[in-house]
Amino acid sequence: ADAAAGQAKAAVCAACHGQNGKAQIPTYPNLAGQNEQYLVMALKAYKNKERTGGQAVIMQGQAAALSDTDIANLAAYFSSLPAGG
Amino acid sequence: ADAAAGQAKAAVCAACHGQNGKAQIPTYPNLAGQNEQYLVMALKAYKNKERTGGQAVIMQGQAAALSDTDIANLAAYFSSLPAGG
Repeated sequence: ADAAAGQAKAAVCAACHGQNGKAQIPTYPNLAGQNEQYLVMALKAYKNKERTGGQAVIMQGQAAALSDTDIANLAAYFSSLPAGG
Repeated sequence: ADAAAGQAKAAVCAACHGQNGKAQIPTYPNLAGQNEQYLVMALKAYKNKERTGGQAVIMQGQAAALSDTDIANLAAYFSSLPAGG
């Protein structure tokens, strides 16, 4: 996976998840330093509409436009950020 | 919410999410320092079976036994842990 390509793709994520993967909005998760494989699974679950409830509909819409390569790159990028912010 | 009560309830979580909320298994998410309100939403979504796919069935089973108070306490506990580990 290509973390630099993920960073380029992540601009839209920052509105909710923060510029550095630390969410500014308390109902949204921090992504910085999260496990890469978990992030792939979560994005695919949103894309497949396997996650509903809460704010999931927002992520269903975001993930719908992502290819498997995009998802792998985004996961590589966010997992590479320091968890402590 | 009562983070100390959450810590007492969190013993079973450690097998997958780590003693300090840093998952040892890469398909599972770190919980340390995650946003409290997000953790509440996620646990309720699992309890309501609104999250499926991936490993969600495991968390559906775990969350089924949790009261709203348990969920609030667990979220308070894990959000209080340092994200950097």
